[in-house]
Amino acid sequence: MLHFDSDYMEGAHPRILEALAADNGNQHVGYGLDEVCDEARGLIRDACGRPDAEVWFLEGGTQTNRTVIAATLRPYEGVVAAESGHVSVHEAGAIEDSGHKVLTLPQHQGKIDADELAGFLEAYQADENHDHMVRPGMVYISHPTEFGTLYTADELRRIGDVCHGFGIPLYLDGARLGYGLAADGTDVTLRTVAETCDVFYIGGTKVGALFGEAVVITRPGLIPAFFTQMKLNGALLAKGWLLGLQFRTLFTDDLYVRIARHADEQAMRIREGFLAKGYDLPFDSPTNQQFMIVDDDTLARLREHATLSFWEKTDADHTAIRFATSWATKPEDVDALLALI
Amino acid sequence: MLHFDSDYMEGAHPRILEALAADNGNQHVGYGLDEVCDEARGLIRDACGRPDAEVWFLEGGTQTNRTVIAATLRPYEGVVAAESGHVSVHEAGAIEDSGHKVLTLPQHQGKIDADELAGFLEAYQADENHDHMVRPGMVYISHPTEFGTLYTADELRRIGDVCHGFGIPLYLDGARLGYGLAADGTDVTLRTVAETCDVFYIGGTKVGALFGEAVVITRPGLIPAFFTQMKLNGALLAKGWLLGLQFRTLFTDDLYVRIARHADEQAMRIREGFLAKGYDLPFDSPTNQQFMIVDDDTLARLREHATLSFWEKTDADHTAIRFATSWATKPEDVDALLALI
Amino acid sequence: MLHFDSDYMEGAHPRILEALAADNGNQHVGYGLDEVCDEARGLIRDACGRPDAEVWFLEGGTQTNRTVIAATLRPYEGVVAAESGHVSVHEAGAIEDSGHKVLTLPQHQGKIDADELAGFLEAYQADENHDHMVRPGMVYISHPTEFGTLYTADELRRIGDVCHGFGIPLYLDGARLGYGLAADGTDVTLRTVAETCDVFYIGGTKVGALFGEAVVITRPGLIPAFFTQMKLNGALLAKGWLLGLQFRTLFTDDLYVRIARHADEQAMRIREGFLAKGYDLPFDSPTNQQFMIVDDDTLARLREHATLSFWEKTDADHTAIRFATSWATKPEDVDALLALI
Amino acid sequence: MLHFDSDYMEGAHPRILEALAADNGNQHVGYGLDEVCDEARGLIRDACGRPDAEVWFLEGGTQTNRTVIAATLRPYEGVVAAESGHVSVHEAGAIEDSGHKVLTLPQHQGKIDADELAGFLEAYQADENHDHMVRPGMVYISHPTEFGTLYTADELRRIGDVCHGFGIPLYLDGARLGYGLAADGTDVTLRTVAETCDVFYIGGTKVGALFGEAVVITRPGLIPAFFTQMKLNGALLAKGWLLGLQFRTLFTDDLYVRIARHADEQAMRIREGFLAKGYDLPFDSPTNQQFMIVDDDTLARLREHATLSFWEKTDADHTAIRFATSWATKPEDVDALLALI
Repeated sequence: MLHFDSDYMEGAHPRILEALAADNGNQHVGYGLDEVCDEARGLIRDACGRPDAEVWFLEGGTQTNRTVIAATLRPYEGVVAAESGHVSVHEAGAIEDSGHKVLTLPQHQGKIDADELAGFLEAYQADENHDHMVRPGMVYISHPTEFGTLYTADELRRIGDVCHGFGIPLYLDGARLGYGLAADGTDVTLRTVAETCDVFYIGGTKVGALFGEAVVITRPGLIPAFFTQMKLNGALLAKGWLLGLQFRTLFTDDLYVRIARHADEQAMRIREGFLAKGYDLPFDSPTNQQFMIVDDDTLARLREHATLSFWEKTDADHTAIRFATSWATKPEDVDALLALI
Repeated sequence: MLHFDSDYMEGAHPRILEALAADNGNQHVGYGLDEVCDEARGLIRDACGRPDAEVWFLEGGTQTNRTVIAATLRPYEGVVAAESGHVSVHEAGAIEDSGHKVLTLPQHQGKIDADELAGFLEAYQADENHDHMVRPGMVYISHPTEFGTLYTADELRRIGDVCHGFGIPLYLDGARLGYGLAADGTDVTLRTVAETCDVFYIGGTKVGALFGEAVVITRPGLIPAFFTQMKLNGALLAKGWLLGLQFRTLFTDDLYVRIARHADEQAMRIREGFLAKGYDLPFDSPTNQQFMIVDDDTLARLREHATLSFWEKTDADHTAIRFATSWATKPEDVDALLALI
Repeated sequence: MLHFDSDYMEGAHPRILEALAADNGNQHVGYGLDEVCDEARGLIRDACGRPDAEVWFLEGGTQTNRTVIAATLRPYEGVVAAESGHVSVHEAGAIEDSGHKVLTLPQHQGKIDADELAGFLEAYQADENHDHMVRPGMVYISHPTEFGTLYTADELRRIGDVCHGFGIPLYLDGARLGYGLAADGTDVTLRTVAETCDVFYIGGTKVGALFGEAVVITRPGLIPAFFTQMKLNGALLAKGWLLGLQFRTLFTDDLYVRIARHADEQAMRIREGFLAKGYDLPFDSPTNQQFMIVDDDTLARLREHATLSFWEKTDADHTAIRFATSWATKPEDVDALLALI
Repeated sequence: MLHFDSDYMEGAHPRILEALAADNGNQHVGYGLDEVCDEARGLIRDACGRPDAEVWFLEGGTQTNRTVIAATLRPYEGVVAAESGHVSVHEAGAIEDSGHKVLTLPQHQGKIDADELAGFLEAYQADENHDHMVRPGMVYISHPTEFGTLYTADELRRIGDVCHGFGIPLYLDGARLGYGLAADGTDVTLRTVAETCDVFYIGGTKVGALFGEAVVITRPGLIPAFFTQMKLNGALLAKGWLLGLQFRTLFTDDLYVRIARHADEQAMRIREGFLAKGYDLPFDSPTNQQFMIVDDDTLARLREHATLSFWEKTDADHTAIRFATSWATKPEDVDALLALI
């Protein structure tokens, strides 16, 4: 069986396992207060071009979104997100459980539009009942989005400008950030992200790590007592150096982006293979998630040999499906997949 | 100045003030454990045709919605509501503050549609990721809606059937219930509400009382420890008999519906007056909130002499506005209003 | 039957009912944005000697405690209170429901001690694990306490100094504040409270009003968006002027303190009557709650004719009990009570 | 430098790293739905003698406590714990953040007493104000406790009986469970725990794993929708099989208890070494945490060469300190430590 249903089906990049094995005899203080974490922080600050940034390590995406958002907002504030955003749909109400509303904007292939955001914030401001409404207190975007799509640097800047004009921070969910940074044709670098966003996270779980996400706060002081807020959200790993080790490895020799590029390349091979056979794309993704429209016969045939994700029915006989590659995808598995169509 | 901007601009119906004055020398135990509250409960149970119903008294609408919903749901559940529902928009995030998501359905002049609700619940059930999503745990409707519109008895039954088929309770926000029960042409009585809904509230604040809402739980045991849950939500009035006195008065001699009918009659006079002058309705309300489309000149003229609510711009030169009447609206004020157009 | 079990067994002072009746024909805008509330705010600011204070009106004590505390604290902060404080024991977990821990100090007849508070805050600061602990973010005291006792002005100042030295606000629960201000021998005036506390409330429910508490924030800006935070806690009364009317009346002609003095005088008569007959006090209260130790026979006899509160067993044959007087207590009821012993 | 300050200073037992390395090329479905987790569940069920138990894997202790407790309790309920319990003091308010009060009992060397628990529950029940109080909804104990002490099987049974008599579940925090099971003289086995507790967790982080805790629910259905409740608490690991792999390894060949025994043996060597030199114990622990009273000179000398934990000052010149051993403690490090005294 071929497996293309998600990008977190494999363990860790071999270098990470080697680093864990090499360090296993050592003793460290807990909770990320160790030297390995400090080294990883330094490497990430360098890569971001932000020597003053705060860097924290958490364990997973939903946990990170919940902790960052709940730790930033006041009780009367909500977070603005695309209606398709992970925080809107697929976190089982983690944001609401922490007491905050997700205020939704239309999505455009997973992205929000700066003008629509501005319109939303202005409408809130202009509404004479706005004191009876949830105040927008933060904006959440994902990059790549849940559709695999990417913002341009200009789009990020415009969204950032709208946020800052309204006086609220911009937060970027980078669960798959590596796959975005490595994509062909993008003009968004890690520095672009660090310049436009007040807080974001660099996803490790889906890009080479066993688990782990690195939160970067580019506006120091934005979130008070983040250490304690991680603790109370159950997000403070006892053996914090395990996260430091993984991110130190990923941010050495540009490993993070290099392994992500491999995934994107394999994804492009899938894209081109399907296009060459005349299949349509519901929308075009330059990253490791590829979406295709297939007829029912093809879908049945594919499912005999490969796992994949259902996206949506596009008409009575056709379905949009998703293939996800990862840093670990074998080229021969892509060959085998393409041989099926 | 004429005042038509809301239906809670006046104190209480004179009989209620009389009842408060007559009782003022008496001593009562607190927290609604007194005999007056028990009498009021009995009258409400009789009016509902449900001798087994639990009846509780709270102070206001948002408080009641928050308390009932938070007291019913488990942490992984949300409440389904129209996107225009009061809980969705105008409670400053009270539901989310209590830890729960408001899952929105399209509104049709403020109403949800039973088939769309069924489709939503089925889609949740069918979604292979539904364990990562908020479980629909309750359905919220308002009657009359925020648009002044009413469900038919059949619509209520169908919505109730969908809820019960999915195994979740139906909750009706009756902040303006009296104005709905008294409307011309409705086939929904208090008994209909009690038969179709698992929990609902009878609004006092907007229908004759100084303040107060009566929660009726027709499925005893639906909400555990409701007394304590009122307390922890800050919704347990120390001098609970003040609420009992008001509801005892409202449910004596059918006062509740009779005074509501007056408001509806005055609202119909406004509706007919505007229609007679050729104005359009954005939608048709049979209750105490009336919506009209007026040109900018008319709007300016009206605003010199009357308070009213902005609803929305309908085109460059026209605006939909709202007039609210109440049990206390003076016919001569309606005359004066109509003389302005 | 004589009733001495609580101080919220009667309706409102006649002047308040008169004010409600006199205003009942008038129309007002909602939510406390009306002129009556503004007048009441002015009178309260004058009485406090703080023209810059923010004044808000809520409906009850638990609601006020919950709203003020939840609106002030950040997620990693808790409120420090006496282990006997109302927020610690008798609010059904309202503070915790809002996400915050109540950090308890020993009580001394209901009071906390400034030195113990300082020690507690220093111990937190000095604890090398304090980033894993709840940060003290506010201090809560009640005056009079749940034991009827009073702080001296000097004690309040010392507690305030400790709070401000640590950088956190002092909050005073004045559910029975009138009975404290009117007590014989106290050197605490409303101005003392306003000078030492950052936020406090003036209790109306127990001192002459039908219901209602006035929150005074002497450090403007301490609590952001308090209006919206009231709303989301279900604490924003639609007909806000009802609260304004009551507090305008209470703060006209010094009515608030004058009627409280009556209650204290009747309480002193009870105290002296019992002392004269040789009964012991478990502790000495100068306010409207009086505590006596009685033998079982006396207790049985009293209970035949009067309601009162059980406080605690003091030994096998004796019980401490509580009598509460109010602004409405009739002197002849006190006579009748004393005739029983 | 010697390190005895905590039991989570090392990575994983070599077998666990081997298992991770051996599996690293394999692909798995996420979220613990894989076969490795199922195998681990089977091994744990066997070890507990409870083939019907639910088993879930989470990442850390505070996260597990928060998730289990919040997922079980209703909004009006709190969890009863020793005043020294981890949930009471060192989780930064995680339980309160989830909306629930920690109701504290006196601790006796970290343990609660069944009679005191019974008395507390009876007092709640008997208190005529209990509807205004937080209902005890669960009891939390830790085994070993934060003092290293252990319950006897009889003590566990008696506490369980008190809980079940009151109708609430007993929850055991087994962060260091292995060190308890392996202790000399204990009559508590994993089966004893599974028989007496309704839910408990087997700590991996401190006993051989990189990270991970296994929750065992012996009363199926006790916690509804636990998967979704993990998700919304940010406690659902994407690559769930990493936890399964670790627990499968720990529960193969009795590894879990065997490596714990090593830690206990080294702890006993420390204990005997200090006792032989005439040092006093503040209390006696049979597990991997050892507490000693040392004079200031000794403390200073120890700190030059070893890390350890401050526990408390016992008098002006003496301090109680803690040494923690682990599955990875080297006997020669213990030798070196003992050579210092």
